[in-house]
Amino acid sequence: METLSPEAKLKKLQLKLPPAPEPKGVYRPLLKDDKYVYVSGHGPVTMENDLIRGRVGSEVDKDYGKAAARQTGLAILSTLRANLGSLNKIKRVIKVLGMVNCTPDFEEHPYVINGVSELFAEVFGETHGIGVRSAVGMGSLSENISVEIEAIFELH
Amino acid sequence: METLSPEAKLKKLQLKLPPAPEPKGVYRPLLKDDKYVYVSGHGPVTMENDLIRGRVGSEVDKDYGKAAARQTGLAILSTLRANLGSLNKIKRVIKVLGMVNCTPDFEEHPYVINGVSELFAEVFGETHGIGVRSAVGMGSLSENISVEIEAIFELH
Amino acid sequence: METLSPEAKLKKLQLKLPPAPEPKGVYRPLLKDDKYVYVSGHGPVTMENDLIRGRVGSEVDKDYGKAAARQTGLAILSTLRANLGSLNKIKRVIKVLGMVNCTPDFEEHPYVINGVSELFAEVFGETHGIGVRSAVGMGSLSENISVEIEAIFELH
Repeated sequence: METLSPEAKLKKLQLKLPPAPEPKGVYRPLLKDDKYVYVSGHGPVTMENDLIRGRVGSEVDKDYGKAAARQTGLAILSTLRANLGSLNKIKRVIKVLGMVNCTPDFEEHPYVINGVSELFAEVFGETHGIGVRSAVGMGSLSENISVEIEAIFELH
Repeated sequence: METLSPEAKLKKLQLKLPPAPEPKGVYRPLLKDDKYVYVSGHGPVTMENDLIRGRVGSEVDKDYGKAAARQTGLAILSTLRANLGSLNKIKRVIKVLGMVNCTPDFEEHPYVINGVSELFAEVFGETHGIGVRSAVGMGSLSENISVEIEAIFELH
Repeated sequence: METLSPEAKLKKLQLKLPPAPEPKGVYRPLLKDDKYVYVSGHGPVTMENDLIRGRVGSEVDKDYGKAAARQTGLAILSTLRANLGSLNKIKRVIKVLGMVNCTPDFEEHPYVINGVSELFAEVFGETHGIGVRSAVGMGSLSENISVEIEAIFELH
């Protein structure tokens, strides 16, 4: 598995990417700087270009949140492909900031954010798909999305 | 417009910068590292060296929050100029983390954080003034300020 | 003092490091990239490999939170030493993101996060141990830990 390219892995895993989200404010979804790619905070964009909404711990549960984190990862992959031409340009994941829209008593942020981290490990492999991470609970998120994730990648 | 330097744009737009804020703890307002400038979390410092306070969604509304975000951007520009000598040293905005002090049901974080993003686009131009961004809701912020923003810039 | 190495300072200050925390999800505690070291969000791991828990402003007070931030700093030092072999590999602190698990009305985040910043200043010296920082209030944190901190360091 590890030797397949990210695009080949995506195909093998039959993963479908949602539309690359348009910016909802004055920012770029992605910025290249030498060998780094900075990705703006992304939400869980669905195949129908809707958003997965709901507060984890009250409106929705942790498994719903984890699925939202995975979908957010697919939206990030879509942004990467749309801007770079191919996911094969990515060498590795440097850093993920996983932000959960959850209740004050919620305690399982790592479980939720594993949704995106497991996806990146599948697509880029365990050696290059797993970087550093924080998984934390926000007071609120835009449009009541369940999860927002920003990331930094390294290019080949 | 795009060909004017940041300092010339500031003058043309008749923008006044507040005093560069002193650190309120054990940190530097700004750190240079090769061609990068890291800026600490800044609050909305006024011309009178006071702070714009109030929780968005209860104590204050989204337009007040957006004005606070713009003022935070002016405070960041003041820190940049005080430490670098001139805003003309800045090549472009890499990354902005916009943190809103708001109620759990608030949903318009991008609207609020556009306050700083529109300012940077005016001063540095659309090509170089717009980078990646996350705009998120915090549980609380220091001294009940309405907005806190940290950023990374690239130098010429 | 400033001329002692970080390891020598640690010894002189008689600081004991807790066990380097195992990842609680799909991430690396630390990632090296050229001259940079990225450190994942760490919690306040005790010498007994337990965690310091409690919400600042209700369950615990600001001094308890500050002690938790210092302990989180010790956990980060433990991760650095376990992965790099020695703290003497570190040239300086670039950036700290200090996240406090606190009530919506809490206003003294810088006071709490000074716990880690003062530790880094003691160990690495004031010139190299103090970088940029944001100190902010989260809606919640994993396992109800009082503080979570992520950081970027520069290597020699």
